[in-house]
Amino acid sequence: MPEMVRNKQVILKDYVSGFPKETDMYMTESSIELQVPKGSNGVLLKNLYLSCDPYMRPRMTNIKGSYVESFKPGMPISGYGVAKVLDSENPEFKKGDLVWGMTGWEEYSLVTAPQLFKIQHTDVPLSYYTGILGMPGMTAYAGFYEVCSPKQGECVFISAASGAVGQLVGQFAKLLGCYVVGSAGSKDKIDLLKNKFGFDEAFNYKEEPDLNEALKRYFPEGIDIYFENVGGKMLDAVLLNMKIHGRIAVCGMISQYNLDRPEGVHNLMYLVTKRVRMEGFLVRDYYHLYPKFLEMIIPHIKEGKIVYVEDMAEGLESAPATLIGLFSGRNVGKQVVAVAPE
Amino acid sequence: MPEMVRNKQVILKDYVSGFPKETDMYMTESSIELQVPKGSNGVLLKNLYLSCDPYMRPRMTNIKGSYVESFKPGMPISGYGVAKVLDSENPEFKKGDLVWGMTGWEEYSLVTAPQLFKIQHTDVPLSYYTGILGMPGMTAYAGFYEVCSPKQGECVFISAASGAVGQLVGQFAKLLGCYVVGSAGSKDKIDLLKNKFGFDEAFNYKEEPDLNEALKRYFPEGIDIYFENVGGKMLDAVLLNMKIHGRIAVCGMISQYNLDRPEGVHNLMYLVTKRVRMEGFLVRDYYHLYPKFLEMIIPHIKEGKIVYVEDMAEGLESAPATLIGLFSGRNVGKQVVAVAPE
Repeated sequence: MPEMVRNKQVILKDYVSGFPKETDMYMTESSIELQVPKGSNGVLLKNLYLSCDPYMRPRMTNIKGSYVESFKPGMPISGYGVAKVLDSENPEFKKGDLVWGMTGWEEYSLVTAPQLFKIQHTDVPLSYYTGILGMPGMTAYAGFYEVCSPKQGECVFISAASGAVGQLVGQFAKLLGCYVVGSAGSKDKIDLLKNKFGFDEAFNYKEEPDLNEALKRYFPEGIDIYFENVGGKMLDAVLLNMKIHGRIAVCGMISQYNLDRPEGVHNLMYLVTKRVRMEGFLVRDYYHLYPKFLEMIIPHIKEGKIVYVEDMAEGLESAPATLIGLFSGRNVGKQVVAVAPE
Repeated sequence: MPEMVRNKQVILKDYVSGFPKETDMYMTESSIELQVPKGSNGVLLKNLYLSCDPYMRPRMTNIKGSYVESFKPGMPISGYGVAKVLDSENPEFKKGDLVWGMTGWEEYSLVTAPQLFKIQHTDVPLSYYTGILGMPGMTAYAGFYEVCSPKQGECVFISAASGAVGQLVGQFAKLLGCYVVGSAGSKDKIDLLKNKFGFDEAFNYKEEPDLNEALKRYFPEGIDIYFENVGGKMLDAVLLNMKIHGRIAVCGMISQYNLDRPEGVHNLMYLVTKRVRMEGFLVRDYYHLYPKFLEMIIPHIKEGKIVYVEDMAEGLESAPATLIGLFSGRNVGKQVVAVAPE
């Protein structure tokens, strides 16, 4: 008889509109067989770390035909995570493998169509595979090197700069010899940007009455590259400050995700007058570069040339509040939830 | 003694805010010597055709550091035109040459730092050098072939489609084997698009209560390429209907030029979800391609494979009203003012 265990889960109560609340989710406990049905192609995962990411907000809404699938009310939240394979009927994975990719917000997940990467490098923190070595890392890598067309000496601005993606984009830009400025929403984050990640400058957007003036202060000659994570008013201010032939890589617009209607952006005519390329991208189009990315970043991590700051919450029970905190910017660094000891 | 002649001129009265009026300009008459000062590098032009173009609206405003120089109140309007050289101290031009480029809204212009192209092909209407063979033609060519990255069979949408640039973009797209739809603001223009320029479909945006619905009707599978001439609400509707990896070439936003504050565009998050590249451009960056462009387009004109519709106003006196008409869409086709017989 296969072993049955209790399985704590984080369930979405119902679709969310406006700002999500902790009570939009609830904890439950079911039981699960620690065995994959024979011939099913599935894997049985023990979840170790779960990732809180901004793109999860749109998944809480009932949108058809979106780029992400909506969560299903009454079912566990799903997201990126790091896990250990307990059982496998899939030829690509075997018991004991460490993996990262899509899993459930629960202690154990039966994944029937695995979208998982096998973890090869285990001499780095395993939680890094929710961040620097996972989806956010690949997002920063693809967004900066593939979309921004960066050149040495260029002036780079990053919003939400201390987040899972922003902190890496800034360090990539510094490695290339760019002038790098980031914005974030607290003194702690600004300190991190300047003292830990080596940004040239950083500012707290909440303390700037006029974002246009703030950008002019840090970019008197204008911005070559804007790595866009927030949208709305910041984008409007950036458009006023772009240099000729500048580039805007649109990674996300977290300031807009909880609004029923996104704010209007008024200064798009500057795309013409400054001949700016503004390009949206999704990391899913770039995973073929993952091996190349690892080859680049693993040595940089080991040599301490690139650092990564995580905000680690403890226990699955903390997951709902932790996810909500992401949208008020409570996290400092990449938000992770530790579910079980390695 | 050099010949002195009377020189009628169109003068900008003062900077304009909001919708420009005919009375923002006035006619005057000065006198001019039909001779270029010795050693001045200048040319003396007799203006034959003057071009009315949307970019002239921002020039009526006092903006510093813009991509175009503001007109000077009390001085003649300037713009693209076709002219004959009456006298030259410039080694590149000689008496009798036909030229196109920047000139004044007057009968005769002394141009001290000529930005002029010599006209080589005279077996086409000379007025074409204000349109299909001039700045608008190069704009359509560079915008479509260099910015849109078009491929055979793609779905192309063009706003202000019967204008100086739009009518050409549509014909270029048809030559490449694209499905082409245009929007414009009157029945006459829609007829032109469908029956003269060979667009697959066309619609009158003024008769569509819901632009999103209109676009869904003509692009059930979505839009690969949007050639943006208008901005505002149309752009917002287009963003909802872009295909994955679509491209938006931003040529201009004529619907916004008379507003004190441009309308807000709300749907930019679709740049991310559909991975769309939106790129502004100015024709000035592409004039090195002008010889290649002529080589392509002259045979097409002669073989009747590309046609061009002009809206010809007669006489310099008609110029102010004609320019204003551009902003209410009164012109049908490329708006030209005939100043003097060839």
